[in-house]
Amino acid sequence: MAGVPAPLERVIKELSKLPGIGEKTATRLAFHLTGAARNDVEGLAHSLLSLREDLYICSTCCALAGSDPCELCTDPRRSDELVCVVEEAADLAAVERSGSFRGRYHVLQGTLSPLDGVGPDDLRIAELIRRVGAGAIRELILATNPTAEGEATAMYVAQLTKPLGVTVSRIAHGLPMGGDVEYADLATLGKALDGRREM
Amino acid sequence: MAGVPAPLERVIKELSKLPGIGEKTATRLAFHLTGAARNDVEGLAHSLLSLREDLYICSTCCALAGSDPCELCTDPRRSDELVCVVEEAADLAAVERSGSFRGRYHVLQGTLSPLDGVGPDDLRIAELIRRVGAGAIRELILATNPTAEGEATAMYVAQLTKPLGVTVSRIAHGLPMGGDVEYADLATLGKALDGRREM
Repeated sequence: MAGVPAPLERVIKELSKLPGIGEKTATRLAFHLTGAARNDVEGLAHSLLSLREDLYICSTCCALAGSDPCELCTDPRRSDELVCVVEEAADLAAVERSGSFRGRYHVLQGTLSPLDGVGPDDLRIAELIRRVGAGAIRELILATNPTAEGEATAMYVAQLTKPLGVTVSRIAHGLPMGGDVEYADLATLGKALDGRREM
Repeated sequence: MAGVPAPLERVIKELSKLPGIGEKTATRLAFHLTGAARNDVEGLAHSLLSLREDLYICSTCCALAGSDPCELCTDPRRSDELVCVVEEAADLAAVERSGSFRGRYHVLQGTLSPLDGVGPDDLRIAELIRRVGAGAIRELILATNPTAEGEATAMYVAQLTKPLGVTVSRIAHGLPMGGDVEYADLATLGKALDGRREM
């Protein structure tokens, strides 16, 4: 790149690979980093390197974790009877942030997507079935996304796990809090009506 | 952070320090990095580390460079007679990208800003005066930003360098290409009229 020294250009190239960061943003960030405190730049670099060194996939719930088994699987204050099944580690973090769930998790690490060549064997479904088979679990809450892939995956998981004698539920779909009936899309409004609850 | 393992939380914290990147974006980027190719994550980390190792301030033009003196100062195809004076390394890169300039550069590394305690001694003005004194320079093009600080800095540099027998010019201010007279702000339109050129 004209007028940009090679070490800086390398940072720009690497930052541009991140989602939602184009060359212009990457250039702005890189120039910022040249002026940032040495500690901050090295802190960022080392945190990135330790991401691969210190991050494990929990062998029980298949979540990203700082240890194996993870803190969530070993926390004695959480219920073993309830397991929330999510697509990705980021979804687990979102459910945790809501503060509404005190059971365990299971991270499928994706959704069924035949067009992309993702089948059941590519997800952590076998691990889930093994956990259900172990007997402690009473209910699976399927919290995959309300998308075509997420619904199909939830359906598939339900079909496999129900026969094992476990309750299988799906998170509610409906109007988001603060939403507006007038502007809700048809599918959401339909789900909200179907899922109505007596007050 | 709930449901986020410590190594990931560290990356989120470090990324959040970057300008324009809040906790939500940092979280999205960090989760992306956990799934990215090992090479990409390490490439980014190492490029950041080498930023401080391999980046120099050119002792001639005070630009960020991969070597000292920098490529722009040593390129024999560039004119020694013309020097474009900019505030920051990022401005130099922008002028280079325009492809309209084939002289040398001088990076002031900031602007005069008394309120922030930035005086002439904090900028690379002494270095510029030394270069002008050496005699090869015929014209200084002041390309500081059209802001209060940029204008004041340009004025200050002009006052110091004109007596040394060098031509001092300011880049043109006016309507940006593709701009609209109807929607131009008053100051810009005023500058565009003042700076009119015979066709």
